[in-house]
Amino acid sequence: MPLQQPDEDAGFIRNETGTQRLVGYVVDVRDAAHGRCYLDVTEDHLNRHGALHGGIAVTLLDNCSGTTGSLTVDATGKAPFLTVSMNTQFVGSGRPGRLTATGTVKGGGRSLLFIDAELRHEDGTLVATSTGVFKRVPPEKLT
Amino acid sequence: MPLQQPDEDAGFIRNETGTQRLVGYVVDVRDAAHGRCYLDVTEDHLNRHGALHGGIAVTLLDNCSGTTGSLTVDATGKAPFLTVSMNTQFVGSGRPGRLTATGTVKGGGRSLLFIDAELRHEDGTLVATSTGVFKRVPPEKLT
Amino acid sequence: MPLQQPDEDAGFIRNETGTQRLVGYVVDVRDAAHGRCYLDVTEDHLNRHGALHGGIAVTLLDNCSGTTGSLTVDATGKAPFLTVSMNTQFVGSGRPGRLTATGTVKGGGRSLLFIDAELRHEDGTLVATSTGVFKRVPPEKLT
Amino acid sequence: MPLQQPDEDAGFIRNETGTQRLVGYVVDVRDAAHGRCYLDVTEDHLNRHGALHGGIAVTLLDNCSGTTGSLTVDATGKAPFLTVSMNTQFVGSGRPGRLTATGTVKGGGRSLLFIDAELRHEDGTLVATSTGVFKRVPPEKLT
Repeated sequence: MPLQQPDEDAGFIRNETGTQRLVGYVVDVRDAAHGRCYLDVTEDHLNRHGALHGGIAVTLLDNCSGTTGSLTVDATGKAPFLTVSMNTQFVGSGRPGRLTATGTVKGGGRSLLFIDAELRHEDGTLVATSTGVFKRVPPEKLT
Repeated sequence: MPLQQPDEDAGFIRNETGTQRLVGYVVDVRDAAHGRCYLDVTEDHLNRHGALHGGIAVTLLDNCSGTTGSLTVDATGKAPFLTVSMNTQFVGSGRPGRLTATGTVKGGGRSLLFIDAELRHEDGTLVATSTGVFKRVPPEKLT
Repeated sequence: MPLQQPDEDAGFIRNETGTQRLVGYVVDVRDAAHGRCYLDVTEDHLNRHGALHGGIAVTLLDNCSGTTGSLTVDATGKAPFLTVSMNTQFVGSGRPGRLTATGTVKGGGRSLLFIDAELRHEDGTLVATSTGVFKRVPPEKLT
Repeated sequence: MPLQQPDEDAGFIRNETGTQRLVGYVVDVRDAAHGRCYLDVTEDHLNRHGALHGGIAVTLLDNCSGTTGSLTVDATGKAPFLTVSMNTQFVGSGRPGRLTATGTVKGGGRSLLFIDAELRHEDGTLVATSTGVFKRVPPEKLT
């Protein structure tokens, strides 16, 4: 692969996991306080009403929330956090274009974090919000 | 189309929407009281921990819940219902194998339905549960 | 009762319902964009850990959210809205002192509203957050 | 205290905490698999629509869920569990009469439990359901 992917250097994670490759979103870890995921919505992400499938919306909200948790302990945004529970409000309809999900830590302690997220269309419209409980996976559990 | 797809006749919906084709799940509308979706989990559906991505779990839970709503008014399971809000509890870890999500109406009225769903591995293990509020889309809004 | 209660005139609702009288919170409708409820927490509102009972926290969050919905259609904050679903994150421990819950509309349409709320201690500490779906009760349903 | 309170012997907890005395519900720990709370609904528990206040419904659902968690480690139902998050679906309207909330463990591990609950009127009508994440408080944290 002769060409560098400069975005990787600048704090983006692409094609890391099977789901990420399948759905096609990009993780943005440049802001240590807010993990982000963006997706250029295509026909592949729509439901039978021609709107964004709720599951794809949650994929973005969940992923940016977990990344936000990881960033609290690891600047690369890869420290493992598991989703314990997540509630999503489908405030608006997601249309084709670029959607960005942004996470924010609301509270928590050593092992559990409360993380909110918002999914917005590139025109600023709010598509969905989420609140979740995320659990840090202790390093000894991963070996 | 000279060849029948026998599964369609038997109450399965395949490849209907962009998201369904992308993720690869199958909708089962044979039981009028419980919409179902199943997915044969592959590498494409995993997160960085090698477990089912939460967003894929929610895709199945959301889709089977909407189908369960549709089945209350339409035996084909295609009458449009929108997800208003949905809460998911990630009870267990989803591993490769066949996962099936099953919806059940818990209550509601003419326009809103409360629909619960469970996602189980083929070995019976509970992977996730959800509770959601779903809204019937009036036919006049669709034209 | 020879003396007026000036606070009523200034946009506070006290002792309106059985639950309000029992629990003792005050509804503040002075800000048309944000319904509020405050409670001076006493022994009566604690659980067995000596902290605010989760049910009391939700009483305040639910009530300020419904009031926020009412304020969108009625400056007195009394137009009826029903809670369809509500999710609460218990971010911190509620201790004795004055707690205030504040609601904010995040989106919605003619019949359903998405309303978030935050419960904070008088020292600014975040005690709990909620996201809810609220439904306007049509006037003809109330007669 | 010369007179026994026979109900205590039979597995009921009354008047233990400030909130319990205020609201007037009774905790039933006779069934080790399902904590229960019941309340005889009066004017004190109603909202401005003359229906059960959502906060009172959640008080019962939260309390029976915590009790269900406690019963997994302690037959008296008093081992401390904290509510991390809870989602409530207000399926039906709560009317005066006896309401009973019943909890069920859906999964979890050593420190976190997923507990569902249902609130039913004495005539069998479903009033509300909840799903919650509960955390065991380690004994060393309580001293």
